[in-house]
Amino acid sequence: MQHDEIPSPAPLKAGALRVLPIGGLGEIGRNMAVFDFDGSLLIVDCGVLFPEESQPGVDLILPDFSPIAERLAEVEAIILTHGHEDHIGAVPYLLRMRPDVPIYGSRLTLAFLKAKATEHRLSPDLHEVSDGEQVQVGPFGVEFLAVNHSIPDAMAVAITTDAGRVLHTGDFKVDQLPLDGRVTDLNGFARLGDEGVDLLMIDSTNAEVPGFIPSERDIMPVLDSVFAKARGRVIVASFASHVHRIQQIIDMAVEHRRKIAFVGRSMVRNMHIARDLGFLSIPEGTLVSADDLADLPDDKAVLICTGSQGEPMAVLSRIANRDHAISVGPSDTVVLASSLIPGNENAVNRVINGLTKLGASVVHKGNALVHVSGHASAGELRFVYNLVKPRFVMPVHGEWRHLVANAAVAQSVGIDPRRILVVDDGVSVDLDEQRAVISGYTPVGFVYVDGSSIGDLTEASLKDRRVLGEEGFISIIAVVDIVAGTVVAGPEIHERGFGEEVLSEGVDDVTGKVREALEQALADGIDDPHDLQQRMRRVVGRWVNATHRRRPMIVPVVVEA
Amino acid sequence: MQHDEIPSPAPLKAGALRVLPIGGLGEIGRNMAVFDFDGSLLIVDCGVLFPEESQPGVDLILPDFSPIAERLAEVEAIILTHGHEDHIGAVPYLLRMRPDVPIYGSRLTLAFLKAKATEHRLSPDLHEVSDGEQVQVGPFGVEFLAVNHSIPDAMAVAITTDAGRVLHTGDFKVDQLPLDGRVTDLNGFARLGDEGVDLLMIDSTNAEVPGFIPSERDIMPVLDSVFAKARGRVIVASFASHVHRIQQIIDMAVEHRRKIAFVGRSMVRNMHIARDLGFLSIPEGTLVSADDLADLPDDKAVLICTGSQGEPMAVLSRIANRDHAISVGPSDTVVLASSLIPGNENAVNRVINGLTKLGASVVHKGNALVHVSGHASAGELRFVYNLVKPRFVMPVHGEWRHLVANAAVAQSVGIDPRRILVVDDGVSVDLDEQRAVISGYTPVGFVYVDGSSIGDLTEASLKDRRVLGEEGFISIIAVVDIVAGTVVAGPEIHERGFGEEVLSEGVDDVTGKVREALEQALADGIDDPHDLQQRMRRVVGRWVNATHRRRPMIVPVVVEA
Repeated sequence: MQHDEIPSPAPLKAGALRVLPIGGLGEIGRNMAVFDFDGSLLIVDCGVLFPEESQPGVDLILPDFSPIAERLAEVEAIILTHGHEDHIGAVPYLLRMRPDVPIYGSRLTLAFLKAKATEHRLSPDLHEVSDGEQVQVGPFGVEFLAVNHSIPDAMAVAITTDAGRVLHTGDFKVDQLPLDGRVTDLNGFARLGDEGVDLLMIDSTNAEVPGFIPSERDIMPVLDSVFAKARGRVIVASFASHVHRIQQIIDMAVEHRRKIAFVGRSMVRNMHIARDLGFLSIPEGTLVSADDLADLPDDKAVLICTGSQGEPMAVLSRIANRDHAISVGPSDTVVLASSLIPGNENAVNRVINGLTKLGASVVHKGNALVHVSGHASAGELRFVYNLVKPRFVMPVHGEWRHLVANAAVAQSVGIDPRRILVVDDGVSVDLDEQRAVISGYTPVGFVYVDGSSIGDLTEASLKDRRVLGEEGFISIIAVVDIVAGTVVAGPEIHERGFGEEVLSEGVDDVTGKVREALEQALADGIDDPHDLQQRMRRVVGRWVNATHRRRPMIVPVVVEA
Repeated sequence: MQHDEIPSPAPLKAGALRVLPIGGLGEIGRNMAVFDFDGSLLIVDCGVLFPEESQPGVDLILPDFSPIAERLAEVEAIILTHGHEDHIGAVPYLLRMRPDVPIYGSRLTLAFLKAKATEHRLSPDLHEVSDGEQVQVGPFGVEFLAVNHSIPDAMAVAITTDAGRVLHTGDFKVDQLPLDGRVTDLNGFARLGDEGVDLLMIDSTNAEVPGFIPSERDIMPVLDSVFAKARGRVIVASFASHVHRIQQIIDMAVEHRRKIAFVGRSMVRNMHIARDLGFLSIPEGTLVSADDLADLPDDKAVLICTGSQGEPMAVLSRIANRDHAISVGPSDTVVLASSLIPGNENAVNRVINGLTKLGASVVHKGNALVHVSGHASAGELRFVYNLVKPRFVMPVHGEWRHLVANAAVAQSVGIDPRRILVVDDGVSVDLDEQRAVISGYTPVGFVYVDGSSIGDLTEASLKDRRVLGEEGFISIIAVVDIVAGTVVAGPEIHERGFGEEVLSEGVDDVTGKVREALEQALADGIDDPHDLQQRMRRVVGRWVNATHRRRPMIVPVVVEA
């Protein structure tokens, strides 16, 4: 259903629970759900979304906090399911509005959040919880259940109020051979299922993928063979939060008698945290500095760095561009041990081509099993549906296509389609007397972070950027004495991104036409600068279209002398 | 090897053949190779490249004709291997420089070229050739061999001079069950191999893909099942040149008693050409207009349209955006019967999400075998290597990673790696006495078409566009009487894409600072407007960085009163 067909929600009925997804439904990222019961709010996750090409220059996109802006005092807690940016990244922005919100999460999740908060000069109120722990925050009973995902220490949460019980899986998969032995708590899911789950909010990211995600352990023999064949250095790029993948690389390095070094700020910081907390095990003497690693023979060295998504400023891209102290050559092996996030294909492709041209062998998920996804695919989702036996289902975390695919998976195990609520950001679901219904649409938008401004960047400015980025601009400036009705100086014409040489041939022609139009307008008694500017714009627009068949932004300026 | 390590080529030795790839090596697109022998030139293909996001606003990219610009009179002919844009699209631009170059190609290839040339108001000198035909153009003996590809009537060419024989595959695959029964002429390849091929130039696009591309016919049962399940309309988007895929759709429509309509300018034009020439068979009464189709019951209608790459102005994107006369709903089935060209992932994803949200079922290569590639994968390449037994190999048509992968395939069948020449655009190979060697690097660049300007757009303007597109601009304008040393009017500040509201709070602050700096400079006797502008730029730059942590383009303008 389109938003324009959904009315605003009615006031929440006494005794009912409202679930309002603010982010993460209809998109991959900025996950955030608000639970509203008896005048109290509980927030699950508060992440950021990374912009795509239609949002140029944007640093981050936040969930739109406006639906809860007037009710911040009623927020009992923020529950964090795990430490990925798309689940914790917007917390500092919410804390700016109310710094003392209690935050609950697992040890690693809170450690990653704390490092982030420190960068924002915030000291949040953190409450560490363990697998299986239950806490009461206001009217919400919250139980934490272990799940596996592409970061350690992830959790699902069961939220119980008098209105019923909701199980929110967070992001999860059901790897039966996780590296840390911490399996997804299917026993807990089963117990909750037997007790009764009224609404299951369940990760949709991989719902389109049939079958089962291979185990993390299936990567090991592939990495082993890569290390065995490598004659020179092994350079591995991965996500700076993928502790288990990094552990695998370290284990391989030890096995093949190599030393490792971390390169890249976020990689160094996160691996330091993970090691301190016991999530990463590095045998004594294995970890060296990048400088010390450079002194070792190539066949003794493993570099672990950022840049697996082709980010232009990350270590790997700079190596591929020959713009980094570390250079690679024909004997080196580069492993991209990560997924390829949609939209990054060209950037990653550039990195692979650059490294290949320098002679390196590049191993990536396109040619070897060096990454497995962290999200449950259809086969795994079916296990969860059958264990939990939910009365109602609300697919979460995914674009519309993923939510719809997850709904089809639910239906495939016999769940009545009328009990599957496919909704996106802003569409709330009310749970009352064990029935869940769509209750309305609350407008939520994109909140852009750009430099130090948060939420000030408008869609109009983004549209301007898109035009400027495609065609550049031409500005035309005239100094006018409006009282005397004369053009005092100019018109002068300037361009950026249009093509200086392209413009220069016609400068006299177009400035002459603009001067004529201006003088005519002034003679006609036009004295509104805005009106004069419109006339200048029209003259330039017609000229540029006729002579160059292009549509740059045209910026007319009348300066009053 | 990097270009900066390769010297310019020495003058061509008498009796030797020089092969200079101008486009298509190190990139996917704008394929063009120049053969230089005894003072005569022969060109194989002359295509365009479509820009990627780092080339904003560019319409097309042409091969850089500068290496042959002084020798156009010596061009004996252009040989076209097939009718795709990346093989014929730049021909009109070459013809503007010399309109009477003879052009050789197959019937469909020349028909597509002619339609294109007509749009450019050109009447090229066309010479139709058939499978197996041999022609002599100047000192070049040229033999044409049938190949299959994702467009009918594609050809490989064998070029024989006194220096030796080169076989150029063009784009090809080795489908043993092609829809039109026209198999790749492996007999011809075998005969040439037995006679001796000195240099094999061979399509690398799919060299990274192991095994064999499924046959075009393998798509039929999948389409059959899609049509059998479809309750409402079937809307198929594909490439407007993929005549065989469109034929399959038409056959399915007939089988399932549906009528078809073509929508989209290029689709209508090309299918008209293909039908006229006998490459497309549409039973009488099957093809109707889009308007007539709208009057039929939904389960009798098939729409064939453009937009399979998510192009924003193409029919399918507009349908997904509810911005087209054709609307889709829950009973409709949309099939994206095409590949997904790298870089288009986000755009296609948007279309799939939009259609899914409107309720349509979307079938695409990610969830069904509705497309197979037109390029030979590694298994097929091995057949060709073993049949042709080339003395030397030059992988063509692909990014560096694909060229390297193709070299590895050649090596896997026993070709000496010293006889495999991996080169990219501008790096020439000389064939002399049956030996091929890299002879040097001739600088070639990107030639951008933007509106009506060809080649005028510089890298500097593109860089400006990237900055403008990311952060917008701030312009600051002051009218100055340099002789009197006074600021007559302004400074005025304007922005686009930076954020009007963001800027407005600080307008007085920054314009005050700029005025101060200007007055100080004028008092110090600075009278160079450029110098004054630099000072304005610095003040604004420091201010915007300090207050907003951003780096918009800053455009200072001093108007002399």
